[in-house]
Amino acid sequence: MSKHLERDLEQLSCDIVTIGGLVEEATQQAVTALQERRMELAELVIRNGSKIDGREVEIEDACLKMLALHQPVAEDLRFITSVIKINSDLERMGDLAMNIAQRAVFLTSQDPIPFPSQLSTIGAATVTMVRRSLDALVKRDAQTALQVCRADDEVDRLNREIIAELIALMKKDASMVERALSFFSATRHLERIADHATNIAEDVVYLVEGEIIRHGMNVA
Amino acid sequence: MSKHLERDLEQLSCDIVTIGGLVEEATQQAVTALQERRMELAELVIRNGSKIDGREVEIEDACLKMLALHQPVAEDLRFITSVIKINSDLERMGDLAMNIAQRAVFLTSQDPIPFPSQLSTIGAATVTMVRRSLDALVKRDAQTALQVCRADDEVDRLNREIIAELIALMKKDASMVERALSFFSATRHLERIADHATNIAEDVVYLVEGEIIRHGMNVA
Repeated sequence: MSKHLERDLEQLSCDIVTIGGLVEEATQQAVTALQERRMELAELVIRNGSKIDGREVEIEDACLKMLALHQPVAEDLRFITSVIKINSDLERMGDLAMNIAQRAVFLTSQDPIPFPSQLSTIGAATVTMVRRSLDALVKRDAQTALQVCRADDEVDRLNREIIAELIALMKKDASMVERALSFFSATRHLERIADHATNIAEDVVYLVEGEIIRHGMNVA
Repeated sequence: MSKHLERDLEQLSCDIVTIGGLVEEATQQAVTALQERRMELAELVIRNGSKIDGREVEIEDACLKMLALHQPVAEDLRFITSVIKINSDLERMGDLAMNIAQRAVFLTSQDPIPFPSQLSTIGAATVTMVRRSLDALVKRDAQTALQVCRADDEVDRLNREIIAELIALMKKDASMVERALSFFSATRHLERIADHATNIAEDVVYLVEGEIIRHGMNVA
């Protein structure tokens, strides 16, 4: 591998970890804003969305330049095309964090209803999945990636608990329907962020082991 | 451009239209299953999911081979990397159609509740968006792509109408909460399929005009 390509690949790893860090932060802040009813924090997440978008565009451009300039093959080629997909996943995850923040803005403007007991647990689990999926990518570590895939089952289970809780709330008191539905949306968005982290982890397993594990693992 | 690359690019266009056709069909069938309470059709959509997954893997492999073999530059390179992302979008859209079919399985097993009046309209609009986004890709047609982006606003508007209808239903009769929530999920999945079609259309505009229009157009 040329020194130039090597340097560009290292830079690409740094960049993807940086955008991943922004997604983690946005997700954590959105859940905190939801839990602590912090309007200003929710608005910060929405404002910061454009930072993630900007990074995504830069990373995609960098990938295209590397493909054109170095014409990489084999593992390097697969790494760069994986980053193109993962980068796109991260941008969507940033959008989902903004969607959660928007639910927080709405809910904070209304009288409070009981906060779903497992929502902050799912939030923390999801943020960990995001971090570990990118760790696995950068370190080419299939074991860590497989752990992320398994963690998704726990997120799905917690999600079902939250939905049951919200259904009970809506049945008990019709005046809570809109607010419970907002929590339902927020929890679905979180679940989807975790799904994206799983997609990233599946791509990492394919990159490292050449084995396709996506499809058929989880249909929710 | 070499004859070989030209032939491979044509084949790739065909393949992406084929997988797109499967996604359109699955989406349409899932909505029909929901509306006509047809359990066997919903189960067919779920069984056919693996076909879409299989195609996705083949297309991604074909893209990687083309990059390694032909080392394309400029527009050809951008077309292939766009297809990598679009292919991944289509696979997710197939999963979402399966999710709708799963809601149809649940709802068909329960006593009926009023079918949301705009749901089949959203379904038809979404299927059209999927078809036109891929038309735009294959014909490198930015105008059609921009129409898809604009159509997404109408889907979002109809979606808000459906949600208002479902909220009214849940408030009126607590015994309908679970079923209304299933329709809510189904309609959200449809909205997300339309979002993916919009992402594809945005990629097409970028491919054709070199102009990035994603980000900031619609945050829902």
